[in-house]
Amino acid sequence: MRKVEVCFSPELIHLHELEGKIVVVVDIFRATSTMVAAIANGVKEILPFPDLESCRQMQQKGFLIGGERNGLTAPGFEMGNSPIAYLKENHSGRSLAMTTTNGTQAIEKSKQASQILIGAFPNLQATVSYIQSQDEDVLIHCAGWKGHFNLEDSIFAGAMVKSLEATHVTEDDGAIAMKQLFEKAGHDLSGFLSQASHAKRLQNHGIEHDIDFCLSFDLYDLVVKVNPEGFLVKV
Amino acid sequence: MRKVEVCFSPELIHLHELEGKIVVVVDIFRATSTMVAAIANGVKEILPFPDLESCRQMQQKGFLIGGERNGLTAPGFEMGNSPIAYLKENHSGRSLAMTTTNGTQAIEKSKQASQILIGAFPNLQATVSYIQSQDEDVLIHCAGWKGHFNLEDSIFAGAMVKSLEATHVTEDDGAIAMKQLFEKAGHDLSGFLSQASHAKRLQNHGIEHDIDFCLSFDLYDLVVKVNPEGFLVKV
Repeated sequence: MRKVEVCFSPELIHLHELEGKIVVVVDIFRATSTMVAAIANGVKEILPFPDLESCRQMQQKGFLIGGERNGLTAPGFEMGNSPIAYLKENHSGRSLAMTTTNGTQAIEKSKQASQILIGAFPNLQATVSYIQSQDEDVLIHCAGWKGHFNLEDSIFAGAMVKSLEATHVTEDDGAIAMKQLFEKAGHDLSGFLSQASHAKRLQNHGIEHDIDFCLSFDLYDLVVKVNPEGFLVKV
Repeated sequence: MRKVEVCFSPELIHLHELEGKIVVVVDIFRATSTMVAAIANGVKEILPFPDLESCRQMQQKGFLIGGERNGLTAPGFEMGNSPIAYLKENHSGRSLAMTTTNGTQAIEKSKQASQILIGAFPNLQATVSYIQSQDEDVLIHCAGWKGHFNLEDSIFAGAMVKSLEATHVTEDDGAIAMKQLFEKAGHDLSGFLSQASHAKRLQNHGIEHDIDFCLSFDLYDLVVKVNPEGFLVKV
């Protein structure tokens, strides 16, 4: 059997071996959910940036630019980090440059993996099926919040560990704990996550519709991966 | 209401503010369980050391020396990290110098706290009652395993968060997750933790009795804290 493990924070990723593994980067509120929404709605490719300035400069090269810090659209950016906003407008065929507080950093720190996938509830089952078609072990890399464990990324990890249970074993304590947590709380994700620190931060920004989207299972039969040039594209 | 938060690894402790807080250091298998057992059985004080060599040298000063690495008694040490061993022999009034793989490092990294307590299941309720008598917020610092999240320290944190629920609120995602996990799995700790990576490592060492001890609730009405000189003593 292949293996699955979970890393709760980019600050712990150095403890894990990434080579030869599929790494699934997870930033449920909202970077990876937004990336999946954008590509599902026609965006051709997404180039992630760790910093605002280099991301902003991509506008001159014809990129749509999306930038978020601390849950808000960064000054001078066309788009923030709202998945719903990407669904409302038509960006078919556009290239998107994007930077977010936690998610893009987690992608950057996953570079040694053999494959990097973008995980979100709206494409969970499609991602699971893709992983099951591959021969490699899996590491779920939670972006967390400024280095801290967060509830939404971690319970997604639990959902994925559970969905992989027929094909992937785990000896990893984080994976075991989060699978248990998902079994307990997964039937009411939005109720459970309304306690989460980050959901509270987002509620203050008035984006309940985004949260609903981010917690919707399997809206898309879509797998998003990072290609060798560093672009996020549809598999 | 006072607050409670959880840190899953010494590698994440720099993300937390320690000043003005009570930090409870937790290394269930087995450092903090052993420290509690030793003091419950008459050891006067314990001086923790991060490294084997400086710990070993304390023997010349009349200290009993306890040293463990990777679950085994370190070469040249009188005692390892077995709580049962400390219960079997009479060490009344002795001073103990002790070093372990993870636990003593977590104590070292908690030094900025206003108080450091030693947490274990055998003195959980006593520690909770002491915390409730104090005015400070609480941080539960899990020693983990070589930087990784581990199941036994984390579920202990969940048990403590739950026990503190009448007096301490939490906005911390790790605390919320672990309280849920304890509510799900706390009725059968040894069954649940038999999946844990560290329990498996310990089973290989043939120390099932130690595990049973480490998972026994409230054997002692005993609170252990680190005094200003760095010694672990009975409160």
